[in-house]
Amino acid sequence: VKKVEAIIKPFKLDEVKEALHEVGVSGITVTEAKGFGRQKGHTELYRGAEYVVDFLPKVKLEIVVPDAQAERVVEAIAGASQTGRIGDGKIFVSTIDTALRIRTGEKDEAAI
Amino acid sequence: VKKVEAIIKPFKLDEVKEALHEVGVSGITVTEAKGFGRQKGHTELYRGAEYVVDFLPKVKLEIVVPDAQAERVVEAIAGASQTGRIGDGKIFVSTIDTALRIRTGEKDEAAI
Amino acid sequence: VKKVEAIIKPFKLDEVKEALHEVGVSGITVTEAKGFGRQKGHTELYRGAEYVVDFLPKVKLEIVVPDAQAERVVEAIAGASQTGRIGDGKIFVSTIDTALRIRTGEKDEAAI
Ligand SMILES: Nc1ncnc2c1ncn2[C@@H]1O[C@H](COP(=O)(O)OP(=O)(O)OP(=O)(O)O)[C@@H](O)[C@H]1O
Ligand SMILES: Nc1ncnc2c1ncn2[C@@H]1O[C@H](COP(=O)(O)OP(=O)(O)OP(=O)(O)O)[C@@H](O)[C@H]1O
Ligand SMILES: Nc1ncnc2c1ncn2[C@@H]1O[C@H](COP(=O)(O)OP(=O)(O)OP(=O)(O)O)[C@@H](O)[C@H]1O
Ligand SMILES: [Mg+2]
Ligand SMILES: [Mg+2]
Ligand SMILES: [Mg+2]
Repeated sequence: VKKVEAIIKPFKLDEVKEALHEVGVSGITVTEAKGFGRQKGHTELYRGAEYVVDFLPKVKLEIVVPDAQAERVVEAIAGASQTGRIGDGKIFVSTIDTALRIRTGEKDEAAI
Repeated sequence: VKKVEAIIKPFKLDEVKEALHEVGVSGITVTEAKGFGRQKGHTELYRGAEYVVDFLPKVKLEIVVPDAQAERVVEAIAGASQTGRIGDGKIFVSTIDTALRIRTGEKDEAAI
Repeated sequence: VKKVEAIIKPFKLDEVKEALHEVGVSGITVTEAKGFGRQKGHTELYRGAEYVVDFLPKVKLEIVVPDAQAERVVEAIAGASQTGRIGDGKIFVSTIDTALRIRTGEKDEAAI
C-alpha cells in the first residue's frame, strides 16, 4: 500500500479531484497548507497577481492506494495540476505498512 | 518507531483521545482536514443531516509510538471511533526512521 | 529521499525558517495543528500564560530533502526551536520512495 501526497495550487483542487476519480481513486484527504519552493525572494503568480514568494496558500492531498495504482495516481495528479508556471507543486510517494477501514475492519488493500 | 495516522469524524475526537490516554499514549497531533471515501455521490450523515458526499470535515490524528505499542493504538482508535455508519474513517500505519524530542535531545523510542 | 516532519511552537516558525534557509533547504510545507505531549494535566507556557495542557496550537513543518541533507536539517530545526521549556516539539524522519516536481517532471533528488 502506498501513500501519494501532493502539494498543489488551491484552484487546481477540483480538476485534480476529477482526474483522480477517472483513475478509480475512492478516497482522498485534503488539508489546507502554506509553503514555498525554490523561488524564495522571487515572484509567483497567485490569483492573477505576482507575490514575492514567502509562504503561499497550498492544498495538500493524501491518497492511499494499492501499490499497482500508485503510478497512475501520480500521473493523474501531475497531468491535472500542471500549468507550466512556477509553483505547480510536488508529489511524494511513501509506503504504508498497514491500512484499516474502521467501519468494516477490512485491512490493507481491501481497506482502501 | 511507527506513525499511526487516523482520519475520523470530528465529533469522535474526545472519545478517541480518552481511549488513547488509556493505552498510555503520551503525544498526539491533530489537524483539521476534509475528505471523502467510497460514497462519492451517495449520502453520509453529518451532524444529524444527510449530505451528498463530496468533501466532509474530518479530523486527522497522528500518533508516533514504539513498534510494540502500534497495534494497541490502532485498536484503541478503531474501538472508540466506530459507529457502524459509513464515513467512520481509516487508519494508516507507517514507519518512522528516527524521532527526536527537541527539549532533551532524546532519540527514537526514548523521544516518544 | 527523506521527509523531515517537525511539530514546533508557532512563534518559532520564523527562526526555524531562517535556520532552514541557511542550510540550503529549498522547499517547506507548513500546516496549522494542535497537539499535546507528556504534560497532559500539567501546565505549558503559551503566549506568556500557563495553560493546563490539553491541545495547544502547534505548527507542523514538512521538508523533503536528499538523504545526505536530512541530519543537517534536523539539527537546524532543533537548534532554532529549542527554548529549554516543555512543549518545544518533536522531529520525525521518514523515507520517501519517489518525489516529482510537477512543472518540470524532474524526479527524486532532482525534484527537490
Ligand atoms: N522540498 C520540499 N519539501 C516540502 N515541501 C515542498 C518542497 N518543495 C516544495 N514543497 C511544497 O510544494 C509547494 C510547491 O512547490 P513548487 O512547485 O514551487 O516547487 P519548486 O521546486 O519551486 O518548483 P517550481 O520551480 O516549478 O516552482 C511549496 O509551496 C511547498 O508547499
Ligand atoms: N484511500 C484513501 N486515501 C486517503 N484518505 C482516505 C482514503 N479513504 C478514506 N480516506 C479518508 O478517510 C475519511 C473517511 O473515509 P470513509 O470512512 O468514508 O472510508 P470508506 O472506504 O468510504 O468506508 P465506509 O464505507 O465505511 O464509509 C475520508 O473522508 C477521507 O478523508
Ligand atoms: N508521540 C507523539 N506523536 C505525535 N505527536 C506528538 C508526539 N509527541 C509530541 N507530539 C506533538 O509535538 C508537540 C510538542 O510535544 P512536546 O514537545 O510537548 O513533547 P514532550 O514529549 O511532552 O516533550 P517536553 O517534555 O519537552 O514537553 C505536541 O503538542 C504534539 O503536537
Ligand atoms: Mg516554486
Ligand atoms: Mg465512506
Ligand atoms: Mg510536552
